[in-house]
Amino acid sequence: MTEIKALPLTAEGFAPFGDVIELRPQPDKIINQGKCGRHHDLATLDFSDGRAGISLFDAEPRSLPYECDLLERHPDGSQAFIPMSLTSFLVVVAPDANGKPGEPQAFVTSAGQGINFHKGTWHGVLTPLEAPGLFAVVDRIGDGANLEEYEFEEAFIISPSN
Amino acid sequence: MTEIKALPLTAEGFAPFGDVIELRPQPDKIINQGKCGRHHDLATLDFSDGRAGISLFDAEPRSLPYECDLLERHPDGSQAFIPMSLTSFLVVVAPDANGKPGEPQAFVTSAGQGINFHKGTWHGVLTPLEAPGLFAVVDRIGDGANLEEYEFEEAFIISPSN
Repeated sequence: MTEIKALPLTAEGFAPFGDVIELRPQPDKIINQGKCGRHHDLATLDFSDGRAGISLFDAEPRSLPYECDLLERHPDGSQAFIPMSLTSFLVVVAPDANGKPGEPQAFVTSAGQGINFHKGTWHGVLTPLEAPGLFAVVDRIGDGANLEEYEFEEAFIISPSN
Repeated sequence: MTEIKALPLTAEGFAPFGDVIELRPQPDKIINQGKCGRHHDLATLDFSDGRAGISLFDAEPRSLPYECDLLERHPDGSQAFIPMSLTSFLVVVAPDANGKPGEPQAFVTSAGQGINFHKGTWHGVLTPLEAPGLFAVVDRIGDGANLEEYEFEEAFIISPSN
């Protein structure tokens, strides 16, 4: 079975697939009489003909090594996963290769990091690595399935990088 | 100084001002091969002529009793505060009374609750009650100040309800 090492999530490594939603080294603006830093507009949102919505996902935690044989994508919208606890989750993505996922890559988030998949990016399902698996999700509300799934003939296994 | 008791946040009590973003008793849909519940479209978002954005707020924790003499509102958009840790925060709101805030009300959230202020709702600044004060904010990105502030002649004090 093909093994994929899950790397620590960085904005640079994740750039081909989406945005890392995390504090910048400095806030863009100080607000509320000096008591709050605003780190402004951190994700490229695109909901096509739909609208933005906020939902919650309550997902079962998993652990590494993790076997994966399915990726999906949302052709009509971006999708952001924002953890509501200081826990990490696994992010599996792949470039598109003629309408199918190419070679998968895996990342593990640090506490305080969220992510936003750009519209149409192949990705694995939400995979918390710790309880509770509670996430706010900002994605497209609108008509249509907005879902394509791809099942690999052979599963791959994602293991920790260290 | 007028004292206001901060009540536990409930969807019913907060309904005149916005949405409580929290798990429903049952998910709207089970996804990801049974491993995830989707609690769908929990907030009324409205960004007028702007667009949705995701920012992070990094705010200094405060404690109760808390003295407040300023409320603000965003005439052009809703604003959601989603805590990225399992901590509580203080929510101060007021109905509109002829273009000024009416009588303020205060709520304390439970871990796992976020909120969305409806467009134009008078509210206090983001006030975490525990560290870290890290929140994802879904609000309007667009032109214009989108901010009105109202300073009370006399501050009011917000105290715990028990």
